[in-house]
Amino acid sequence: MARWEGNARGRLERAALDLFTEQGYDRTTVAQIAKRANLTERSFYRWFPDKREVLFGGSEELEERFIAAIGAVPEGTGPLATLMAAFGTAPEVFRPRDFLRERAAVIAANPPLQERELIKLASLSRALTAALRERGHDAATAHLATDAGMAIVRITAQRWLADGDADYARLLSAGAADLLSVLTQDGALAQP
Amino acid sequence: MARWEGNARGRLERAALDLFTEQGYDRTTVAQIAKRANLTERSFYRWFPDKREVLFGGSEELEERFIAAIGAVPEGTGPLATLMAAFGTAPEVFRPRDFLRERAAVIAANPPLQERELIKLASLSRALTAALRERGHDAATAHLATDAGMAIVRITAQRWLADGDADYARLLSAGAADLLSVLTQDGALAQP
Repeated sequence: MARWEGNARGRLERAALDLFTEQGYDRTTVAQIAKRANLTERSFYRWFPDKREVLFGGSEELEERFIAAIGAVPEGTGPLATLMAAFGTAPEVFRPRDFLRERAAVIAANPPLQERELIKLASLSRALTAALRERGHDAATAHLATDAGMAIVRITAQRWLADGDADYARLLSAGAADLLSVLTQDGALAQP
Repeated sequence: MARWEGNARGRLERAALDLFTEQGYDRTTVAQIAKRANLTERSFYRWFPDKREVLFGGSEELEERFIAAIGAVPEGTGPLATLMAAFGTAPEVFRPRDFLRERAAVIAANPPLQERELIKLASLSRALTAALRERGHDAATAHLATDAGMAIVRITAQRWLADGDADYARLLSAGAADLLSVLTQDGALAQP
């Protein structure tokens, strides 16, 4: 059992994901999740405000980790380079890859979870932009660097989930290179 | 009165925005919006499924316009250049700038509207990615070009709303150049 599954929160996440996969998100109740995790409903609500939130327990850790990592980047580093350095620390707080792969499938199949994911990603974007602004970057640059960084992280996550042997840092670099290539390809910027 | 305000839908949008601004989004009812527009509640629901949706009437037109414009771009054009050409047609379906500026303020002040906007933007992204894929671009390229394009459009919209005299096409080019500059700045891509 992975370390994060040894605690109540990890057990609830695992139980919820198993039930969502087995019987569907809509048909699963908080009571069932708690029971499967050998916990009470009250324990569930100690960790999560509602059923939708149970698959997003990792998003706060990820945000905190990124913000801490941004703080550790040497001053004078460019905004996107700062984000890339922070993103490189993501695997330290990732749930196991199998869990994340199942989770992605459940989210893709359930619009309420997709909406919650959009909100979480928007919250992460806001936090990253704010962190860059605190480092002295202007608003436009902080926004654009965040948008570029989020695009890179999104493609990196997809590739990392799809390929069991891929190295996260290498995929992150490849994603950045691919984004740059899209921007410089055959006069993309020459259009009005 | 602008052309779009001459019809029932435009009048409902205008009435809703005025009421949201005057008395707040939460305190405004569909009945009040319909009354202000000299229409019945039933007419409201002919155009919009709920109160949240009334500020997003333009998003479908924008999506349709972009998809049509993408179809008109010469084959062999790069994916981001294709999107940029489509984005350039946006002002043709824009609501008046004053309306859009007030609308942005109301959305920024109301989390339920922010969530709806995230969903609309995600829907637009999906449609753009699908349109690029239909033109033969691979999935990763289509996604990255869409993410880059959406980043450019977001900064362009902010600048266009902020500066009453700015030319949309010029701002679009400037946004693209700024995004490229963020990507190439001081070794952003050299990080692992």
